[in-house]
Amino acid sequence: MAFNKISNYLLERFTEIVGPENIFTTPEQLQKYAHDETEDLVFFPQVAVSPVSAAQISDLLKLCSEHLIPVTPRGAGTGLSGGALPVLQGLVISTEKLNKIIEIDQRNLQATLESGVITEVFMNAAVEHGLFYPVDPSSKGSCFIGGNVSHGSGGPRAVKYGTIKEYVLNLEVVLPNGEIIWTGANTLKYASGYNLTQLMIGSEGTLGIITKVVLKLLPIPTQNLVMLASFPNSESACAAVSSIFRTGITPSCLEFMERRGVEWVIEYDHFQFDLKPEVDAFLMIEVDGHDSNLLLTEAEKINTVLESHGCSDVLLADTSAQKEAIWRLRRNMPLSVKSNSIYKEEDTVVPRAELPKLISGIKLIGLQFGFDSVCYGHAGDGNLHVNIIKGNMTDFDWNNKLKDGIREIFELTVSLGGTISGEHGIGLVQREFMDIKYSTVNLNLMRGIKNVFDPKGILNPGKIF
Amino acid sequence: MAFNKISNYLLERFTEIVGPENIFTTPEQLQKYAHDETEDLVFFPQVAVSPVSAAQISDLLKLCSEHLIPVTPRGAGTGLSGGALPVLQGLVISTEKLNKIIEIDQRNLQATLESGVITEVFMNAAVEHGLFYPVDPSSKGSCFIGGNVSHGSGGPRAVKYGTIKEYVLNLEVVLPNGEIIWTGANTLKYASGYNLTQLMIGSEGTLGIITKVVLKLLPIPTQNLVMLASFPNSESACAAVSSIFRTGITPSCLEFMERRGVEWVIEYDHFQFDLKPEVDAFLMIEVDGHDSNLLLTEAEKINTVLESHGCSDVLLADTSAQKEAIWRLRRNMPLSVKSNSIYKEEDTVVPRAELPKLISGIKLIGLQFGFDSVCYGHAGDGNLHVNIIKGNMTDFDWNNKLKDGIREIFELTVSLGGTISGEHGIGLVQREFMDIKYSTVNLNLMRGIKNVFDPKGILNPGKIF
Repeated sequence: MAFNKISNYLLERFTEIVGPENIFTTPEQLQKYAHDETEDLVFFPQVAVSPVSAAQISDLLKLCSEHLIPVTPRGAGTGLSGGALPVLQGLVISTEKLNKIIEIDQRNLQATLESGVITEVFMNAAVEHGLFYPVDPSSKGSCFIGGNVSHGSGGPRAVKYGTIKEYVLNLEVVLPNGEIIWTGANTLKYASGYNLTQLMIGSEGTLGIITKVVLKLLPIPTQNLVMLASFPNSESACAAVSSIFRTGITPSCLEFMERRGVEWVIEYDHFQFDLKPEVDAFLMIEVDGHDSNLLLTEAEKINTVLESHGCSDVLLADTSAQKEAIWRLRRNMPLSVKSNSIYKEEDTVVPRAELPKLISGIKLIGLQFGFDSVCYGHAGDGNLHVNIIKGNMTDFDWNNKLKDGIREIFELTVSLGGTISGEHGIGLVQREFMDIKYSTVNLNLMRGIKNVFDPKGILNPGKIF
Repeated sequence: MAFNKISNYLLERFTEIVGPENIFTTPEQLQKYAHDETEDLVFFPQVAVSPVSAAQISDLLKLCSEHLIPVTPRGAGTGLSGGALPVLQGLVISTEKLNKIIEIDQRNLQATLESGVITEVFMNAAVEHGLFYPVDPSSKGSCFIGGNVSHGSGGPRAVKYGTIKEYVLNLEVVLPNGEIIWTGANTLKYASGYNLTQLMIGSEGTLGIITKVVLKLLPIPTQNLVMLASFPNSESACAAVSSIFRTGITPSCLEFMERRGVEWVIEYDHFQFDLKPEVDAFLMIEVDGHDSNLLLTEAEKINTVLESHGCSDVLLADTSAQKEAIWRLRRNMPLSVKSNSIYKEEDTVVPRAELPKLISGIKLIGLQFGFDSVCYGHAGDGNLHVNIIKGNMTDFDWNNKLKDGIREIFELTVSLGGTISGEHGIGLVQREFMDIKYSTVNLNLMRGIKNVFDPKGILNPGKIF
């Protein structure tokens, strides 16, 4: 499909639709819409707009469809796979002004909100209504709920509470031809034809632009305990992970961190922490519920498992300050890695008992291809973020040879029953690895679905496939 | 699309594929494949087969695709919407011989099984491995796991544990052209392109034939308590439902039953029960977990809520025999209704706080159209099974006038934010009501998806659309 440039005529029409205050055309204005959080990639759109309603988005899409203008939907731009990058220029439609929480319904434990609401803003609003929305990606302070839906976001609590796909009940979506639909119903059960709601989740803005989201909420767990466990090596820490679940306890977080990541947080964040020389890996474990005695019993059981896997020390945090300190260690890890070196982050996921094989395999591949890595992530879900560090690699090797190493990592992941992204999505940067996971038959089904929703291919072209 | 009859040539080819012991052509043999549990509907296929592998199903579908033979996939035939009925004759492919549990993986808390395994057989096998599979439709003793996936099954425990869509990790599917795919990965998180796994769930055998299922499992809750609460009327019982969740407690079951349903179970099942004259509705509530004291505290809190909604009596069951008796009351209700009168069951679902409006609206519609109804179901999910009783209705009214009444019930359901099926599916009998819930745009997206998977339209024709 050959796309067109945005003409002056179209620019005027766009301006009529969104108003002059919501259209951006200068390089200074467009800077903000030219990148996300994926490496150092930059692609400028020709024009960006920040509409205030689904009706405006509908009018924009009708025009873009008619005139074959590529459209890139954008949430907060916190993505890690390049999904919001306007690789073919065209129009960026930002949802930043769709930021109203429409209703928090305490009678039904559900909420309706616009897609540009910041995840943490919504979480806090839910708490004010005595309710709990558990899906907390690292970027929760800035990412949008619509972006979370589009990427099937997870986060540390997914191990107990599931990813966002378990909370989305219904979506308002503007289709590429401008039609506005609701995908499902505001109900906990649904068996009324194909589940278009679930199909939209993780579709990365390629099928439609999400404008409203109906989410299920939970009662707030009132108590929690946090533990930080030290291990002599990553393999024993990872092996402990699947043993913990076999006790019958489902922790509300079960995070893995390599020593190097912790060192970098200490340095970056001026963090006070007694890092013992014999410790090479950590597990951070949270249990939550409504009864503190029960949680202490669970913590004791977990402690026994940890010791049986060679854990040398467990720090049990039961004050807010202690808990906050441990969480800060984990939460600041992405930024610390980022501040330390050029890096690429891969979002591997395997069945959790395969983690020891995955991590030792990754280190071997690194040795073979000459790269170092810092690994951390949601071990309870088998979801390991592999941060490949440029370090002393030459630019040539980084830009050329590394790709083969990443391919080997994904081949290992898939051979262990896993897939190439657990929660970051495919977007632009993982697109070339889709063949590792999927047969042509699978890919053609996906392409066929894309074609049903977007026959002209105007929406987020160059992504996923 | 004009379909063909199965010729003698094809019959021979089918026999070569599945062997003479797995092909059925006489009326006596075909009787079994001509009905499900939907009313008294009967449609005979021309031929039925019970293949033993995905490879055999692939070979069968290749032939049917080439020769334009309509194919109806069939699980255990326990469906309530006519999804397994071969309305255009052709070939029934039964999954009854795909009945192996391939692996229960205690390290990863997941299992891989063939789609023809009986749900309860699998649940018990999981328990033997110390694990819990919570999705328990009423028909669990006979239904197949593949049918549960195809209908997005729920059941009483869905209120706490979710429906089957929260447990399916990956599916092996034979497409109408005979290609065999895996839809996803055996992982808890997944953000790698469109979620074909979730798309298959609830697709009622119209997109492919499910041959293997990978399911997530949980630790077994070791303790539970069951309560039976009596109310003077349905509205107050339903109003109590949404108040219970506002205490912060999520019961593992929260079932509603009308007096009439209980009366019929007493009669049908020779059940010993002191049914007080002033009682018109019941809630059955189960809480589960690992700590019996905590459960008692929860039961007390729930009791306070029940009393504030006019509950006159609460029976607390803490012995196995007492719990079993209360469960038997609920479990035997569908059969008791069935044994009592010709009836039609509608599977309404609304946001749970709308239940009082739904139930009083249904009774009003009944008065207007001259039908009586017995309602019961998964009130905690807002999922109410409305059993319309023929009683004294004339055959003419039953066959003609009733349809308009059902349409009004579904219009009410949708106006309350609900949908026309929570867990039974659309199949054959709810097809004509799809327009109440969906715009032409939604329906065309669904038809488009169908066409991507099944361009010749051979798979389960006449269903959903």
